Amino acid sequence: MLQLRFINRQSLLVLDNLCTKKGVHFTIPRNGSQMPITTTSSSTKKLLFRQLFEKDSSTYTYLLADVSHPQKPALLIDPVDKTVDRDLSLIKELGLKLIYAMNTHVHADHVTGTGLIKSKVSGVKSIISKASGSKADLLIEPGDKVSFGDLFLEVRATPGHTLGCVTYVTGDGPDQPQPRMAFTGDTLLIRGCGRTDFQGGSSQQLYNSVHSQIFTLPKDTFIYPAHDYRGFTVSTVGEEMLYNPRLTKDEETFEGIMKNLNLSYPKMMDVAVPANMVCGLQDPISKA
Amino acid sequence: MLQLRFINRQSLLVLDNLCTKKGVHFTIPRNGSQMPITTTSSSTKKLLFRQLFEKDSSTYTYLLADVSHPQKPALLIDPVDKTVDRDLSLIKELGLKLIYAMNTHVHADHVTGTGLIKSKVSGVKSIISKASGSKADLLIEPGDKVSFGDLFLEVRATPGHTLGCVTYVTGDGPDQPQPRMAFTGDTLLIRGCGRTDFQGGSSQQLYNSVHSQIFTLPKDTFIYPAHDYRGFTVSTVGEEMLYNPRLTKDEETFEGIMKNLNLSYPKMMDVAVPANMVCGLQDPISKA
Repeated sequence: MLQLRFINRQSLLVLDNLCTKKGVHFTIPRNGSQMPITTTSSSTKKLLFRQLFEKDSSTYTYLLADVSHPQKPALLIDPVDKTVDRDLSLIKELGLKLIYAMNTHVHADHVTGTGLIKSKVSGVKSIISKASGSKADLLIEPGDKVSFGDLFLEVRATPGHTLGCVTYVTGDGPDQPQPRMAFTGDTLLIRGCGRTDFQGGSSQQLYNSVHSQIFTLPKDTFIYPAHDYRGFTVSTVGEEMLYNPRLTKDEETFEGIMKNLNLSYPKMMDVAVPANMVCGLQDPISKA
Repeated sequence: MLQLRFINRQSLLVLDNLCTKKGVHFTIPRNGSQMPITTTSSSTKKLLFRQLFEKDSSTYTYLLADVSHPQKPALLIDPVDKTVDRDLSLIKELGLKLIYAMNTHVHADHVTGTGLIKSKVSGVKSIISKASGSKADLLIEPGDKVSFGDLFLEVRATPGHTLGCVTYVTGDGPDQPQPRMAFTGDTLLIRGCGRTDFQGGSSQQLYNSVHSQIFTLPKDTFIYPAHDYRGFTVSTVGEEMLYNPRLTKDEETFEGIMKNLNLSYPKMMDVAVPANMVCGLQDPISKA
């Protein structure tokens, strides 16, 4: 009788190689047992993922954690100041250890929650791109990996909405969640994209960012944007390549569309941008 | 060398038995090949799932489809009249065939989209519980299965918010998505529950519904409610059993909480309830 329980590590690796090709992945569990488990399924199980919505600015905040790691390390992408208590309460209930509060870019429509989070939870580090010109504990660059437990996010430079926009993409590998997930900020929205008329914006850059850094990901990659104004929660690379009304156009047409949007000045901009340039730490500083 | 490709069916079943216990599930693929595939992963891949939000009433509409079936049959749970065009456009883009437009109950805060959907897409059938006393193409009862392709939803009676409330739960079985998903309507909300002071509501019934029909599901079952007012998108049975501020209380305390909510009369109630009692078909009828 085939007793997988007792096969040796080498056989298991053979099994791994064989099965990986057909979509079944095995790993040696951390506890040292040789019982195979599916990494596709287990890495998806490893990842605790929550999408959270802030209604006034229609912002999505994302909570990710590696719940198979003893410390359950977690991060927040694009937290909003006014929903920090909600987010921290959820993190506490789920028994997670928040290690990073990250931004995809310097937002103009809401104040980031990173400063408030740092004042409430010790040890949390703020993250933003070096290219944003902002202050943060960690300034990340394209190609950097942001690790939480055994999972990680890869940093891709996607300027165009602002000069320092990045997209965070879940890792590529058999022990990382499948399908991959791209947190695109305002670079790529569901059936749309961020405006390009201020904060170092450039429609040409945004077009190139999306086509070179996002549309080159596997088509089943989930798109999780920083905002949605019509009630969509998720899309995929494949869907946006087919149906995004702006980014399916050629570059010249796209630039024409962006030039003629005639959007009004963001009402929060004069408050939000200076605050977000210091990762929401304006309050503690002004109080000091 | 261990060649899973050539092992016989009996060995595969042994492998199945062994691995199932540790969360790895195998099936013989439909095409007759004996190569094992993970059913957890494949049935989750079969299910296309989208959560959609209607901002004015904070309603979630859910789109589910079996995309491994040639016709890609799909259903909508709790569609809203004002977002029908968005939902149908998405369904068209994804190449799905909408077969059912279902409600968890007779809503008092918005008009269901089912009537409008039926007027725009031929062949779609409306579904609501028999206990609701409403008109619909199909009146479902507890224990019924609503099938779409090879996937199905199980119907559970969860009265208390209204007399006819049901919870739809994804099927239990190796070829159904894991973890399971419960669409709880207004019976169980994230860290809350629906009011029980009109439409045949009963706090005693709601308490019993949640404890006997929802909290008995596996703890990792996802809770997808009909509404959220604080930006949460999903919870789990385990989380609500620990942290729901109302339903973790004993029955008497719960009834006291519900009695003293002093909620105002729903502004949409006089329009929404009569419309929803005929599954949103009031417009075509009045025009006829």
